[in-house]
Amino acid sequence: MTEKVVHAIQDEYPDDFSHCYGCGRLNDEGYHLRTGWDGKQTVTVYSPRPEHTAIPGFVYGGLIASLIDCHGTGSASLALHRKNGHEPGDGVEPPRFVTASLEVKFVKPTPKEVPLKAIGTVEEVHPKKFKVHTEVFAGDECCAKGEVVAAVMPATFAQK
Amino acid sequence: MTEKVVHAIQDEYPDDFSHCYGCGRLNDEGYHLRTGWDGKQTVTVYSPRPEHTAIPGFVYGGLIASLIDCHGTGSASLALHRKNGHEPGDGVEPPRFVTASLEVKFVKPTPKEVPLKAIGTVEEVHPKKFKVHTEVFAGDECCAKGEVVAAVMPATFAQK
Repeated sequence: MTEKVVHAIQDEYPDDFSHCYGCGRLNDEGYHLRTGWDGKQTVTVYSPRPEHTAIPGFVYGGLIASLIDCHGTGSASLALHRKNGHEPGDGVEPPRFVTASLEVKFVKPTPKEVPLKAIGTVEEVHPKKFKVHTEVFAGDECCAKGEVVAAVMPATFAQK
Repeated sequence: MTEKVVHAIQDEYPDDFSHCYGCGRLNDEGYHLRTGWDGKQTVTVYSPRPEHTAIPGFVYGGLIASLIDCHGTGSASLALHRKNGHEPGDGVEPPRFVTASLEVKFVKPTPKEVPLKAIGTVEEVHPKKFKVHTEVFAGDECCAKGEVVAAVMPATFAQK
């Protein structure tokens, strides 16, 4: 499996969509989550910070939710971009998505000190709406499962 | 409505459960979310940090998910503690909960520069499991709705 994402969709977002705390390359304090293709699945790799504790030894659930969230919008963007004939790295600006809903099931405590890998499968549920099914692994163990419904960003958002 | 939580359940957690990035009083980098009763509902107030951006002007969804998550476990703890005859501040250690599942519906973009208020209603679904229905307000506007299923922490967790 991919250990590092080479061509991430977030690298291609225009500047005004690159301030996200989870995945914006221009947010100095943020997580800089990066999502790319691994065959027909999508992948995001992230190493939690020392402070991302739930109880000592385990990863904070809100961080896992954040990972699933940004992995979801990134995966939806990858999918629609590919449907439109494009791949990250080809110089074409990808479509931008927002999260409509987020679901996380915490399957087991997620150990710290291991990089987390979110692996996603994208399902088109409407031409402007995608559902992303995600599993979060710590090493070989699936510790959380998530579902994000992501919608193409309304034009009104970008005008703010 | 309560603007500041006076007696928060998180103030009563024992030290080994007080390192949570979302609500642990001993996590120096964390959010220090604090959840208390407001009549029969529960409330958590939080002012997002400047870096908690989705797109400029709006709050990051993962932060809202984190707020709903810790508000959920805190509310469940408040509810079982009250059922057992206790209130935060009376010196009795409250029961500890973990999140089994988390759902967030993002109703509308959440403006920054306004404190967020999570208001919860707790439903007992099993003697050791509570469902917390939460609405997150920015000012008078409900911007997100959430549902957390929180379960009494298994004894095995605390031994780690």
